[in-house]
Amino acid sequence: MARTKDFDPDAVLDRAVELFWRHGYEATSMADLVAHLGVARASIYATFGGKQEFFAKALQRYLDTTDPHVMTALSQPGPVLPAVRALIDTYVGADADNDRPRGCMVVNSAVELADRDAGVARLVEASWAHLETTLTSALLRARTQGELRPDAEPRALARFLLVFLQGVRVLERTPDAAARLRDAARVAASALA
Amino acid sequence: MARTKDFDPDAVLDRAVELFWRHGYEATSMADLVAHLGVARASIYATFGGKQEFFAKALQRYLDTTDPHVMTALSQPGPVLPAVRALIDTYVGADADNDRPRGCMVVNSAVELADRDAGVARLVEASWAHLETTLTSALLRARTQGELRPDAEPRALARFLLVFLQGVRVLERTPDAAARLRDAARVAASALA
Repeated sequence: MARTKDFDPDAVLDRAVELFWRHGYEATSMADLVAHLGVARASIYATFGGKQEFFAKALQRYLDTTDPHVMTALSQPGPVLPAVRALIDTYVGADADNDRPRGCMVVNSAVELADRDAGVARLVEASWAHLETTLTSALLRARTQGELRPDAEPRALARFLLVFLQGVRVLERTPDAAARLRDAARVAASALA
Repeated sequence: MARTKDFDPDAVLDRAVELFWRHGYEATSMADLVAHLGVARASIYATFGGKQEFFAKALQRYLDTTDPHVMTALSQPGPVLPAVRALIDTYVGADADNDRPRGCMVVNSAVELADRDAGVARLVEASWAHLETTLTSALLRARTQGELRPDAEPRALARFLLVFLQGVRVLERTPDAAARLRDAARVAASALA
């Protein structure tokens, strides 16, 4: 008879996300994971695989828990541009939340691993494509509702915001980034008008 | 009598830059460095210190060889905005150069190390401050020359470009980024007008 797991895999995955997000792939050892997760090494391997597979599952979990928030925020009926501006402000204000690791696990993974792990590269691209599509859809609605000029290009604007927001995730890595990011965000928002 | 070095420290440093830029800090071992640089381990330690110190010297070398190009490009007399647009195009087109590692060593270092290596964080911030100041200075001149509206804010525009360009360095980590980055760059350039 198979032994019942004595831990909640999603809760363990959330703690693994925290560790990989904060320290990256290379700087997190299996020994760190065992110590941090409170689960025996053999159970980790049996449930999540080796470190590479575990990292991919943690990144997928990160996407599953963060991407839907953006989609919900941008899919409400009514004016669209205030929601887009609020999204920019959320990115810019994120470093005020001290409980959260700095930066973004997708950006970190792209920089550290996309060149040499095709599975990670696919997850990164899927997340960026999701954000680009969600923004394009919202900005199309904004144009139809007269919030953007008739000659505005929703997809180009969405791609611009995608690039800008990942830049915010990089610049927030230094201390005292708040004023710099607020200035930058004001200009980025003006590109929509 | 001290033995004369039988290698050129700057040439060795350039090869170390290549390795750290491509693979990052954690994924590059001292054994990798010894194998790649063709210099005995003892000579590396004697000339560049341990891995952490060597990395900081390589990052400094990267800044010394890349930052002056931007300053030269933005400090020419005459119209400024074409030079700024050309700078954006240089970032966007960089992944067409297959000899060069993808991304930017400053962005990579910020993401991998700024949280836990104060020396690296200082070099990263110094590089970003240099770009911000160079762009602000150029855009002030653009405003004086009538290329920007009198109410344009050079520093805010410079901070915006700084953030956007680091975003380009992140998004170029996935394949087939060219069309996305060109669209984004077109919108970013329009924010100057």
